[in-house]
Amino acid sequence: MTDAPRLVGPVEVIGAGLLGTSIALACRRAGLEVLLSDTSAEHLRTATGLGAGRALLAGDTRQLVVVAVPPDHLGATIATALAASDAVVTDVGSIKTGPLRAVRDEPGVARYVGSHPMAGSERSGPLAASAALFDGRPWAVAPHGSADPDAVALVEELARLCGAVPVRLTPEEHDLAVARTSHLPHLLAVLVAGRLADAPQAHLALSGQGVRDVTRVAGGDPALWQQIVTGNAEAVLGLLTEVRGQLDLLIEAVGAGSRDQLGALLARGVAGTQAIPGKHGGPARPTRSVYVAVPDQAGELARLFADAGEIGINIEDVHIDHDPGRPVGLVELVVEEAGAEHLLASLESRGWVTHR
Amino acid sequence: MTDAPRLVGPVEVIGAGLLGTSIALACRRAGLEVLLSDTSAEHLRTATGLGAGRALLAGDTRQLVVVAVPPDHLGATIATALAASDAVVTDVGSIKTGPLRAVRDEPGVARYVGSHPMAGSERSGPLAASAALFDGRPWAVAPHGSADPDAVALVEELARLCGAVPVRLTPEEHDLAVARTSHLPHLLAVLVAGRLADAPQAHLALSGQGVRDVTRVAGGDPALWQQIVTGNAEAVLGLLTEVRGQLDLLIEAVGAGSRDQLGALLARGVAGTQAIPGKHGGPARPTRSVYVAVPDQAGELARLFADAGEIGINIEDVHIDHDPGRPVGLVELVVEEAGAEHLLASLESRGWVTHR
Repeated sequence: MTDAPRLVGPVEVIGAGLLGTSIALACRRAGLEVLLSDTSAEHLRTATGLGAGRALLAGDTRQLVVVAVPPDHLGATIATALAASDAVVTDVGSIKTGPLRAVRDEPGVARYVGSHPMAGSERSGPLAASAALFDGRPWAVAPHGSADPDAVALVEELARLCGAVPVRLTPEEHDLAVARTSHLPHLLAVLVAGRLADAPQAHLALSGQGVRDVTRVAGGDPALWQQIVTGNAEAVLGLLTEVRGQLDLLIEAVGAGSRDQLGALLARGVAGTQAIPGKHGGPARPTRSVYVAVPDQAGELARLFADAGEIGINIEDVHIDHDPGRPVGLVELVVEEAGAEHLLASLESRGWVTHR
Repeated sequence: MTDAPRLVGPVEVIGAGLLGTSIALACRRAGLEVLLSDTSAEHLRTATGLGAGRALLAGDTRQLVVVAVPPDHLGATIATALAASDAVVTDVGSIKTGPLRAVRDEPGVARYVGSHPMAGSERSGPLAASAALFDGRPWAVAPHGSADPDAVALVEELARLCGAVPVRLTPEEHDLAVARTSHLPHLLAVLVAGRLADAPQAHLALSGQGVRDVTRVAGGDPALWQQIVTGNAEAVLGLLTEVRGQLDLLIEAVGAGSRDQLGALLARGVAGTQAIPGKHGGPARPTRSVYVAVPDQAGELARLFADAGEIGINIEDVHIDHDPGRPVGLVELVVEEAGAEHLLASLESRGWVTHR
């Protein structure tokens, strides 16, 4: 067994948008040479100006090509890149079977390994880019059956170099996985949010944190989500059809007042929330929420976190309650269960108003 | 026009669970006498031990009775309370037309004004209670057509005394409003979470913040939600039927690859997220997210918030990214758009790794 090839560059990045420029910045941070191209001269100028690399020139050699163009253009761009040199080629699109279908018969397809960093932003373009975009995120690496193992290893090294955690899946598994963990939640959040669009203002005044959480993702860019959903239509349709079956059961249960049937559906939902892995990829650790009333003024949150820090309890998550009303926020600190009582008692002794 | 009656007590609270005991504690904080009862002797002992009031005795008089029993028992308990004295009676159940139907023909019904504080906790029972539970929350006050205006004013005063913001609606409007802003989001989150319950672990490893936000509420107690949903069956069914229609359109659009039809549904979702009122009940103010990489260690969040506090920017909301992976958290600070650039530049100058 030979050693896996090291990623030494140059790295060519095609598409200087949010993802492409962020990957370029991360490669530059690691000292690699980066060669950039984009159909938009302005994006290219911005990205090179940010220090993400230099414009690609004829005759340049490269070890790895990263294709970071919109979903609709992935297949053609990957094929062109495979033909242009002997470099390994990856892409960072959110769907993996579609681009593969488009390049399956290319002579260099063994050098193609699709991937998908689970990171993004509600903003787009090179100005929104950051070398830190991928820190701590999963990065799916989805090789097809005849991919060169060295090419797979090189793409996994790119993920690690960007600060991400490579997660290996087949292209088919990947697309089923994101349909379930990303596309379906997005589409059902859209349906819930759609019911709010023409609701009377007096009704919306009762909105609490729950509906805000459920609908937040539905604010995402429709033009991008059109491409994502239609690009993964088969997997998405399978899940939507399952949901329609469950929705029919739900309508039947509510219509008939059948508490048992309703209870079974609700219990399955609870099981689903418990199936999502915990923060550091391991099994979910038991946590508990501690609520603290905080005046909505600059500095008050700082004082709270300074106190929590001195108390020495690690905060796993934070939510700030957005309910309309007076300018007193309710801050939810999620901590490991074992430390919750100590945190509560210590915050109270420092004058904070808490509840459990 | 006479002055509205002042809430001076005594206040009787029937049901010493989370809500009842929290209301009792808030009334005690305001110096009112509180009389407690509960079918569970242990709950009653716990609540009185917490200083929430004393046990009700025969011959006690009261100005206001608060019924805080489980949904299934509201009607009968309100009727008994109306017959037992001349006091104003309210309840704090999450559905308002059902209890009203049960007491509509009682002689004292003019003294009954249903209400519903939009607050709760994933915990229950008197030990989870807090006088601060309602701070800054909406509190629906839902008088029927022949309710005594003085009784309505008294219940609104209770809401304010508990730190909440009264929102007046008819009982029918209330039930439609919570079906839309609470029960429907809950049920669709349950359906999304249900699809995760038996997903392969490798697929769930790609879970990001989106699916966590969408499914969080689905972890709520099935026994309570059974009662809530069946108690508001008519309004919930109407919305579920609307959603089924939209889901059919969605399945059609994805199946046919119709981007226009899909785009229209996605755009309606965006409009819905924008319809939810902003933090302080006014129109939503433009905000922007600032991302900061934070080592997952006690004290690091404190340092971040201390720095943000010194910079003088008010933080509207915080999210900590839970992606599996390395122990570096990505913290999203939501701030008013006008202050975002200043915050970014100032955090960077203090050595934080940010991105936009």
